[in-house]
Amino acid sequence: MNVTVLGAGAWGTALAVLLQRGGHHVTLWGHDAAYLAELRKSAKNERYLPGIALPTEWQLEANLAAAISSAECVVVAVPSKAFREVTTALANFAGILVSVTKGLEHETGLTMCGILAANAPRASHAALSGPSLALEVARGIPTAIVAASNDAEVANTVQTLFHRPAFRVYTTTDIAGVELGGALKNVIAIAAGVCDGLGFGDNSKASLVTRGIVEMRRLGIACGAQAETFAGLSGMGDLMVTCFSKLSRNRGFGERVGRGEKPDAILASMTSVAEGYPTARSACHLARKLDISTPIIDEVYAMLYEGKNVRQAVQDLTTRESKAED
Amino acid sequence: MNVTVLGAGAWGTALAVLLQRGGHHVTLWGHDAAYLAELRKSAKNERYLPGIALPTEWQLEANLAAAISSAECVVVAVPSKAFREVTTALANFAGILVSVTKGLEHETGLTMCGILAANAPRASHAALSGPSLALEVARGIPTAIVAASNDAEVANTVQTLFHRPAFRVYTTTDIAGVELGGALKNVIAIAAGVCDGLGFGDNSKASLVTRGIVEMRRLGIACGAQAETFAGLSGMGDLMVTCFSKLSRNRGFGERVGRGEKPDAILASMTSVAEGYPTARSACHLARKLDISTPIIDEVYAMLYEGKNVRQAVQDLTTRESKAED
Repeated sequence: MNVTVLGAGAWGTALAVLLQRGGHHVTLWGHDAAYLAELRKSAKNERYLPGIALPTEWQLEANLAAAISSAECVVVAVPSKAFREVTTALANFAGILVSVTKGLEHETGLTMCGILAANAPRASHAALSGPSLALEVARGIPTAIVAASNDAEVANTVQTLFHRPAFRVYTTTDIAGVELGGALKNVIAIAAGVCDGLGFGDNSKASLVTRGIVEMRRLGIACGAQAETFAGLSGMGDLMVTCFSKLSRNRGFGERVGRGEKPDAILASMTSVAEGYPTARSACHLARKLDISTPIIDEVYAMLYEGKNVRQAVQDLTTRESKAED
Repeated sequence: MNVTVLGAGAWGTALAVLLQRGGHHVTLWGHDAAYLAELRKSAKNERYLPGIALPTEWQLEANLAAAISSAECVVVAVPSKAFREVTTALANFAGILVSVTKGLEHETGLTMCGILAANAPRASHAALSGPSLALEVARGIPTAIVAASNDAEVANTVQTLFHRPAFRVYTTTDIAGVELGGALKNVIAIAAGVCDGLGFGDNSKASLVTRGIVEMRRLGIACGAQAETFAGLSGMGDLMVTCFSKLSRNRGFGERVGRGEKPDAILASMTSVAEGYPTARSACHLARKLDISTPIIDEVYAMLYEGKNVRQAVQDLTTRESKAED
């Protein structure tokens, strides 16, 4: 299949490598021509995927219209803040669109597939999400993930497209559950990272994460998702890896917040995007609109956007009264 | 309250320290008088709780009958293999018995509170379980845990007994769910450790753990537990910390198995008990008896008891056909 991946960051590049290894004709689009020229020349991406030999037979393209002109499937892997703008180019695209970006648009509360439905109404839409650190996928380490689409046939097509011996793809039609799980877990991961940064242990983090998935599920159900999706790979599975892995960007961002660094300064120093930062704001806003209780998300918002003292925020989360577990 | 803790290993000692700090009159029983004399003399336990100052005003007692003679509550923290024998001494005890041991008796399939019900029919029974690495609890790092009893009043009493500012205790009446979650997660943690030992990454481990909780819940429900308990602290919470923490004994045991060491040799070299080892056998036996599908538990059993090649076992788990996520 002719597949174009939009976004040449860690995840877009890792998926392009995977698709190329799967025998597809791959075009990788990035907005920075000089950066692509460097990838072409070196066949390496030391910034995002150190140690991985990149293919040489793929197309690297900085012109968006050219990149999608002969695509049957477009995989969108740009940061959430650029998602709406980049996907306006897909207005007439009638193939399969797969979002692999995890976020919520602040103004609308839309997931990325919600934006695709608005920007590319002729296309079929799917989301791919699960516990999948980009570097591990590029290294060929066994990974399992979920392809979600309202249309089961589209989910099956995406499954076949990505499936590899070390990359198992499961399917579901609960696209809302998969996308909300993917977006919200990044906010919980920031809280988990703050625990790490404060020197709190694994006991604290495990109880935080356990209550975190309750919030994710509660908010997800209010948005039309199915409860059981949050117990699967795209919910609990992805949450675990994001909260416990040393490789997780959002956890690492939170760890630096926990150590007392200022969010703005951390963001400026990171080469990758910590999607949990904008999602904390969108999710908090959405929860208030829907009147859903989300104490962890609220404390993350307060730490990142209102300058709340991190130790106080975590203390406020961990010193609530004992009661029956809910 | 007069509380006696049976078992002076890491967890028993950490809980005795916690109870002493909570103002209770604590007696700690261990079968080895010389070991207790050393604890008394040094006020330290470098083997299990390095760096922790032990109380000096508690009782250390090697005589079991004397240790329980004036107890209102007895906390049982001995390894599962010694549980039935030690608790025969409680035949006439009519106070509150709290099991903090995680295991399943092989011959009967009973949980530890099941053994207490048989051995100490006059007492009230409860189990205490959750993500609680002993060393972190002794260090006063915030921890949340669940007190379970069929009798809600007993659960509330146990909650009050253990509650401390950095040790939050929730209550539930689903004692089967809490005990089975605690026992079975150690088996999944061995599988997670094997993944680590083989050099597989966090993606693999997250998908294994996500499917692990499905097995735990399935087997638990067949034994009368409530599904939602497995989503709480004593299920998913404890599972996460046991599978991801460097401090976890069962994960560490699995990691060494994954590196090719023989189970017998590892067990002989460990100072603490890896309860997942006997539980793998009991759980596999129980699942066959109840006709419940438990592929991960079965592979752990095959690796530990039938000499199955670890790489083959993990491969058999990770290369099953793609399908809809269940």
